[in-house]
Amino acid sequence: MSLPLAPFSSFASDNAAGVHPRVLDSIVASNQGSALAYGEDRYTAEAVRRFGDLCGREVECLFVFGGTGGNVLALASLLETGEAVLATDTSHIHVDEAGAPERLIGTKIVTVPHSDGKLTVEDVEACVADRAQVHHPRVGVVSITQVTEMGTVYKPDEVAHIAEACHRRGLRLHMDGARIANAVAALGGDESLFRELTQHVDAITFGATKNGGMFGEAVIVFSDHGKANLAYIRKQLAQLPSKMRFVSAQFNSMLTDGLWLQTAAHANSMAVQLYERLKDIQSLQLSPPQANSLFPTIGHAHAETLREWSFFWDWNQTLNQYRWMTSWATTTEDVDVFAGVVRSVLASS
Amino acid sequence: MSLPLAPFSSFASDNAAGVHPRVLDSIVASNQGSALAYGEDRYTAEAVRRFGDLCGREVECLFVFGGTGGNVLALASLLETGEAVLATDTSHIHVDEAGAPERLIGTKIVTVPHSDGKLTVEDVEACVADRAQVHHPRVGVVSITQVTEMGTVYKPDEVAHIAEACHRRGLRLHMDGARIANAVAALGGDESLFRELTQHVDAITFGATKNGGMFGEAVIVFSDHGKANLAYIRKQLAQLPSKMRFVSAQFNSMLTDGLWLQTAAHANSMAVQLYERLKDIQSLQLSPPQANSLFPTIGHAHAETLREWSFFWDWNQTLNQYRWMTSWATTTEDVDVFAGVVRSVLASS
Amino acid sequence: MSLPLAPFSSFASDNAAGVHPRVLDSIVASNQGSALAYGEDRYTAEAVRRFGDLCGREVECLFVFGGTGGNVLALASLLETGEAVLATDTSHIHVDEAGAPERLIGTKIVTVPHSDGKLTVEDVEACVADRAQVHHPRVGVVSITQVTEMGTVYKPDEVAHIAEACHRRGLRLHMDGARIANAVAALGGDESLFRELTQHVDAITFGATKNGGMFGEAVIVFSDHGKANLAYIRKQLAQLPSKMRFVSAQFNSMLTDGLWLQTAAHANSMAVQLYERLKDIQSLQLSPPQANSLFPTIGHAHAETLREWSFFWDWNQTLNQYRWMTSWATTTEDVDVFAGVVRSVLASS
Amino acid sequence: MSLPLAPFSSFASDNAAGVHPRVLDSIVASNQGSALAYGEDRYTAEAVRRFGDLCGREVECLFVFGGTGGNVLALASLLETGEAVLATDTSHIHVDEAGAPERLIGTKIVTVPHSDGKLTVEDVEACVADRAQVHHPRVGVVSITQVTEMGTVYKPDEVAHIAEACHRRGLRLHMDGARIANAVAALGGDESLFRELTQHVDAITFGATKNGGMFGEAVIVFSDHGKANLAYIRKQLAQLPSKMRFVSAQFNSMLTDGLWLQTAAHANSMAVQLYERLKDIQSLQLSPPQANSLFPTIGHAHAETLREWSFFWDWNQTLNQYRWMTSWATTTEDVDVFAGVVRSVLASS
Repeated sequence: MSLPLAPFSSFASDNAAGVHPRVLDSIVASNQGSALAYGEDRYTAEAVRRFGDLCGREVECLFVFGGTGGNVLALASLLETGEAVLATDTSHIHVDEAGAPERLIGTKIVTVPHSDGKLTVEDVEACVADRAQVHHPRVGVVSITQVTEMGTVYKPDEVAHIAEACHRRGLRLHMDGARIANAVAALGGDESLFRELTQHVDAITFGATKNGGMFGEAVIVFSDHGKANLAYIRKQLAQLPSKMRFVSAQFNSMLTDGLWLQTAAHANSMAVQLYERLKDIQSLQLSPPQANSLFPTIGHAHAETLREWSFFWDWNQTLNQYRWMTSWATTTEDVDVFAGVVRSVLASS
Repeated sequence: MSLPLAPFSSFASDNAAGVHPRVLDSIVASNQGSALAYGEDRYTAEAVRRFGDLCGREVECLFVFGGTGGNVLALASLLETGEAVLATDTSHIHVDEAGAPERLIGTKIVTVPHSDGKLTVEDVEACVADRAQVHHPRVGVVSITQVTEMGTVYKPDEVAHIAEACHRRGLRLHMDGARIANAVAALGGDESLFRELTQHVDAITFGATKNGGMFGEAVIVFSDHGKANLAYIRKQLAQLPSKMRFVSAQFNSMLTDGLWLQTAAHANSMAVQLYERLKDIQSLQLSPPQANSLFPTIGHAHAETLREWSFFWDWNQTLNQYRWMTSWATTTEDVDVFAGVVRSVLASS
Repeated sequence: MSLPLAPFSSFASDNAAGVHPRVLDSIVASNQGSALAYGEDRYTAEAVRRFGDLCGREVECLFVFGGTGGNVLALASLLETGEAVLATDTSHIHVDEAGAPERLIGTKIVTVPHSDGKLTVEDVEACVADRAQVHHPRVGVVSITQVTEMGTVYKPDEVAHIAEACHRRGLRLHMDGARIANAVAALGGDESLFRELTQHVDAITFGATKNGGMFGEAVIVFSDHGKANLAYIRKQLAQLPSKMRFVSAQFNSMLTDGLWLQTAAHANSMAVQLYERLKDIQSLQLSPPQANSLFPTIGHAHAETLREWSFFWDWNQTLNQYRWMTSWATTTEDVDVFAGVVRSVLASS
Repeated sequence: MSLPLAPFSSFASDNAAGVHPRVLDSIVASNQGSALAYGEDRYTAEAVRRFGDLCGREVECLFVFGGTGGNVLALASLLETGEAVLATDTSHIHVDEAGAPERLIGTKIVTVPHSDGKLTVEDVEACVADRAQVHHPRVGVVSITQVTEMGTVYKPDEVAHIAEACHRRGLRLHMDGARIANAVAALGGDESLFRELTQHVDAITFGATKNGGMFGEAVIVFSDHGKANLAYIRKQLAQLPSKMRFVSAQFNSMLTDGLWLQTAAHANSMAVQLYERLKDIQSLQLSPPQANSLFPTIGHAHAETLREWSFFWDWNQTLNQYRWMTSWATTTEDVDVFAGVVRSVLASS
């Protein structure tokens, strides 16, 4: 079978996309003269102020190099000595960070089976019963992912209930927001919805790279539970960018005129478009996307043909399940090309 | 006293400088379409190949986010379980990384007093005597810094002698090359001198950010002592950039037409120029710079006046010693302005 | 209901028992004059020699304070930097060591559902498929428990098959032998069966405390995969007893005339006796014990009455499952008293 | 030269001595029937109560296996995430624990040159100046050793001044009391002097093994700075003895009728006796002992002859300095034999 050129934008992941032009412009524009390193520059002061405005209250806001480092710093900001973290068995911190939390901060991640990608209030309650047993890992922090690894989105009241369950029992709540923008956009929201969604959370890893950035994420600590010396812990975790202005400049452009929500909403809409193009193919077993990913079921041979043409990740090999993901850069043309080839490959024998 | 505007380029550090235009151009140019994340892109393949050419042999080359992470990865690539690191009491890994090696890889750093910034063959020999004592930290890796924290430069034969002393006793040698380019340039060298300088070293942290980059350093492991799974350890240390192409693109431009040595040579020459402008002032106790830093002695009041005008770091408070540092971006005009104000402030009462 | 006195020996755990008289005698006898600390004494030399004889080949044998420390040292002796451990979801290192391996050596424990307490060859094969993925925990060591936490016993050929599956794929095999003596006894074996059972294992934690000792366990490293500097790693893990002779003396008595197997065989036989006394009570859902534990199902109210009378641990709260455990010190009278009260409490309403 | 038999009690270290008969008796006596593990026994309840009486106030008291583990737990009980420890360059935690604090709790130990074995108020003040610098290790806990590694003893007001300097600046104070009994005895004191000496300290490692015990030390946390979950942290550090009664029984006998101070006072008096026997030999450069150690200067050949006859440790190879140490078990006859041989060996050519 002769296939057309692969789409310009990959459906492998949102981190295969490049940098959004406005974000790149902000980087270039900040390359003027000297600026003291490690955040002692005006771009960083501005970005921190913008995050304060976004959150609507006093927060600690620390920029880091990447997502794994951001999650580790956020967890470190909430964990007491000796405590473990509760997360789902599909959570990124458990499955996709190569054991970084265990190595870098010595914490254990205790897992529960996910429910459509999510952790539940019941999971929190069950883990607390164990805290009195000196031999068992002692959970101190619960971590949820927004958007989840299964493409689902926690609603504000779901987060509030989990947070309430945590706080009533002396636990703290972390949100891995690598795709927080896609979640807010998926909930039809603006900045006030972000505040509603995060108001009971103790710390959040706020993703930027997957949403049109080049590098750098933000760790926002909302809680009085946060440590006094977070800036110091960031340095110790090797997550303090020296030429910080180039991270901060990205956030300044993203937080201007709601760019961060526009890029995310676009990515989400491209996933819907891809779903619409292919939902009639029963064998794919597609569910309507909540954010920017689809999880098709594809037979091995067809999947390999497609992946060779335009790469995407497998998700659950036992179920023949894969992941297609859209980004700020995906175009209608990309969707059309991709959907067309999927249809023709699946139709071939 | 009324002072002129501060110089355009800060003398605080080479990481206060921006990104070199050719490096920035390469970043912008690589922002074309999709590229698989985590190094599965053509820019990274090219950068790795270029480092192989530079080193003239098979090496493992891994890009990381920053200097602290690079040092920790390089040390992890050489350390056996339970081993400690030997370094001078002024070394960056001991003094300026907030305890990151201890936290992230659990190693202890054993220190010896520096000799003009350097570690000596005798230091290596002395530490080995201790290795039989099960209660004492057991040194497995020796780490030297090039350029040293005192602005001095190890010559190729000095490195070779230390490496020989290490290898004869089963130790491995790491070079923290945050300013390796300035060292090579200072030795009047080109790429072949880089090879001579590093041929007996087991792993090197190759700095880029201070030399005109935006973010990202390289860890080069020369040795068979290196671990098999370095890519995996990098991920676990939270030092795997997702949109790797933007790190690799920087290295590609730096390694084209010797840009990395030109920028470093310029920085060095600006330090010489500053030295020439001020060497007659006895109270400063300036030594001729070997690379891109000067370490003046200044009385407290004068220093504060100067630092308020254009910030620079103190270096040894007991000795009233400070550090002035030049970069790829420093201009003759900057030097003239800076030297002029230093002279007039010191002349004031 | 008026209950008789609780049995002299608790059925809570084999670590509730005291020290076997011959072991205690050996401790007292070794308290003669001075002996250099940290193992430089003749008792330790003898104990190490005895372990060599038991194993029938060159081994590294290190005595440590306790079981958790022993497991951590054994894992550290086999793990390469950055690697994870595979174990069942009921394994002691995962469930009952409070996150010690994660804290002390930074490793992640990857779990698979147990099969009657055991890990299988298929589990090993499945985990290896993941090793190429840089984001996923990279298993380097497989850990099995003998006797398992569900009271089952791996047969020599089961261990051999798992070992073969590990070694073919570059993994190493650890056996948590906290109750290795009960396993050997359960398999009807003597010292040659111990050799058969462990001949393909790379490191074993050899339990003593639960089998009539006071404190101290042995870590035996069979493999060339073991680190060169294990004695040093033990010290760093805070597991080097200073007055080592009192640990070694225990092992010397245990390894004399097969005491270690006699005490274990006795414990096992007491579990069988308890099973025989109660197997007719359907509601208990007892299986014949393979070693020294039974796992009865008991309704909450009855269980609480019994536990108040003579404490034992719950095992699976969802299933109302508890654990009864016998030891070297359990007597037929203890079994009779205990079984009698169980029967009468269950008969009450 | 023909030498007599070596003394019955070694002068190598107080941990070469055996167990005091009353302590051994208490161990044997506690070997009666079952006792729940992990401290749920009456011996432990009694020992904890006795420590409360000794301290004269509410304390957390946790028994651990050994001294290194005790120091690590005590430090962990006081350190906040990311903090470092300040200690002298001769401190046991820095020199003689093989990097255990760095490995087990990821902390860095920042050192200052000792002053006659001690740390000073000025050292505390100097380290605090550094705490604002995000790149430098951030000291949170100061650790002093009592008796110091140089055989000197902090007086109560010295400790109080250091504690005051710590607390005024938000630091906490740890005392490594591996030989706290020798210190109290050396100060001519009883239990009230112990209270005076420790009343401003936040946590103490209370040594027992060197003072006539078999194994086990106590960690006493005096301070509200202590963590809530210390029992849990102990377990995670692999320092929770399962058959705890045998540790607790030792403390019960030591704390009865002041045995712990009698044994220490005896050890100290034997050091004085040894000093008196040899003080006239100028070349030894002996100072009057403050506790139970002497630090003679001996030429290499003579030292080797003596060490071959009856082993003792070198202390400072550069200075030809060695250590002689007495214990609860040293007798006047031992001193006479040892002093006699030293005198005759030194007199030989």
